[in-house]
Amino acid sequence: MNLSKVLIYGMGLMGGSLALSLRKKFPNVAISAVVRSEKSKTIIRSKGLTNEVYLQSEFLSPNWSSYDLVVFSTPVESILKIIPSLPKSGDTIFIDLGSTKETIVSAVENFYGDKTHNYISTHPMCGSEQAGPEAAVADLYVDKLCILTKPKSASNASLEWVRLFWESIGSWTMEMDSKSHDETLANLSHLPHVISTILVNVAGSNATTMKEVMGISRPITGGGFRDMSRIAGSNPDMWISIFKENQSFLRKSIDDFIQQLTAFRDLFSSGLPIDEDKMRKIWELAEETKEQIRKSK
Amino acid sequence: MNLSKVLIYGMGLMGGSLALSLRKKFPNVAISAVVRSEKSKTIIRSKGLTNEVYLQSEFLSPNWSSYDLVVFSTPVESILKIIPSLPKSGDTIFIDLGSTKETIVSAVENFYGDKTHNYISTHPMCGSEQAGPEAAVADLYVDKLCILTKPKSASNASLEWVRLFWESIGSWTMEMDSKSHDETLANLSHLPHVISTILVNVAGSNATTMKEVMGISRPITGGGFRDMSRIAGSNPDMWISIFKENQSFLRKSIDDFIQQLTAFRDLFSSGLPIDEDKMRKIWELAEETKEQIRKSK
Repeated sequence: MNLSKVLIYGMGLMGGSLALSLRKKFPNVAISAVVRSEKSKTIIRSKGLTNEVYLQSEFLSPNWSSYDLVVFSTPVESILKIIPSLPKSGDTIFIDLGSTKETIVSAVENFYGDKTHNYISTHPMCGSEQAGPEAAVADLYVDKLCILTKPKSASNASLEWVRLFWESIGSWTMEMDSKSHDETLANLSHLPHVISTILVNVAGSNATTMKEVMGISRPITGGGFRDMSRIAGSNPDMWISIFKENQSFLRKSIDDFIQQLTAFRDLFSSGLPIDEDKMRKIWELAEETKEQIRKSK
Repeated sequence: MNLSKVLIYGMGLMGGSLALSLRKKFPNVAISAVVRSEKSKTIIRSKGLTNEVYLQSEFLSPNWSSYDLVVFSTPVESILKIIPSLPKSGDTIFIDLGSTKETIVSAVENFYGDKTHNYISTHPMCGSEQAGPEAAVADLYVDKLCILTKPKSASNASLEWVRLFWESIGSWTMEMDSKSHDETLANLSHLPHVISTILVNVAGSNATTMKEVMGISRPITGGGFRDMSRIAGSNPDMWISIFKENQSFLRKSIDDFIQQLTAFRDLFSSGLPIDEDKMRKIWELAEETKEQIRKSK
């Protein structure tokens, strides 16, 4: 795999970790980064993540074609703004790390039309409640799934190149079309973040709970709450951007959740005995489905 | 601490782990167990968890007073049935490991009236998605919170004895009255189990999601879904029993959850821009509350 010049456009946890992964696997690669803030620039320099680092304001007329690989790891909204400025020919491979696919893939398909190109949209599933380049680690992508979404006119060669690229970094890959990706991720990733956040706020809005919590220096919670709250309130910028891009599928997932939770709540009708059979069926269905989704016993 | 004869009535994960903890801390203690099934009896014998093990049907007229400590670790419903058969005098200390407190403490207070007694209700917060005596481990209680609830006429001496007992097993303790316990636990423990279970079932009811999930041999999920689904569908018997005992507080928690989730969903009104400020406030509130509850940064 020929890789001598890479540009990572946007360098938070994911872009920074990709830089570390690249250094490990391709020690001679020259990495450039583009970031929004002086603070990120300073951190990236002091951690030695890249060979060069520019502010967006210093990088207004990029020569995209001078890189073998360009990786967009900014929020989806700003990727959408950049796509129309990409070159329509050349050998540079373009990928993004966007958490939603439909708006990006539509933008790519609109921009390139029938023209063959090398833009493959990818989604490495390795978020963390940590953020920023200071949290970057070299093994973030190892053994993680990277979903590949091929826009209509992207070349098969670029798809195979990108697949090999992620596999060389240690990820495993699968292909998904953009609509299936966004609907599946609404349920398996976006909804869980919403639910975790609301769960914490429900506890926080209960006066008795917070009185007990604040009255003692150690956490009252067991492992259940700890796991269920880990991702609550993390990365508001990133998540607001994701929710905006995926709002119709996410709204559908939330509606399904409210409907199923209401049905569960209605099993406790004041004064009547609980319908234990129905409750048990809900529990058993979850046990079975959990194994199917997590592929674990 | 004088402890030579202990009865553990009900021996699943928690009772079995308590037996192992006792063996470690008090090597000379004689432990008896009472269980429902032949299967549990066989497992307890083969793991050597206790000195004696009886089926409930072999233990119909127990001599409670022959033990220094009696521990009830069955579902709350069956503890409620046993309480009226306890002796009203003697030195035996009675505790339970029930996950709800209001119904137990009411039953104890009704039974003993103004008579001083040695029944302290306790709740070690160390559940697991594992179940059964086969999953018992000696360090289950180490560094875990055990909540102590003192019924009105329980002696202060028995409260202090029970506190010392749990601390000698390695737990840390705090006191809570029964209503505060049940309301707090509805939010910090019972609601999370419901939410986790519904989340898995929402994903399972989405055809696109399950088509992608079933089309590949490895899990599509990232760490978010993995954490959020860990407790889904676990121990239906135990949870149905807990929900029955705590239904009014749990229903209130579920209603609060539905109300806050609906308010979040309503931030995506079709066709209008998302109210990003409101969404960010929800996220920031969760981030702050999470730290207060988890006592972590």
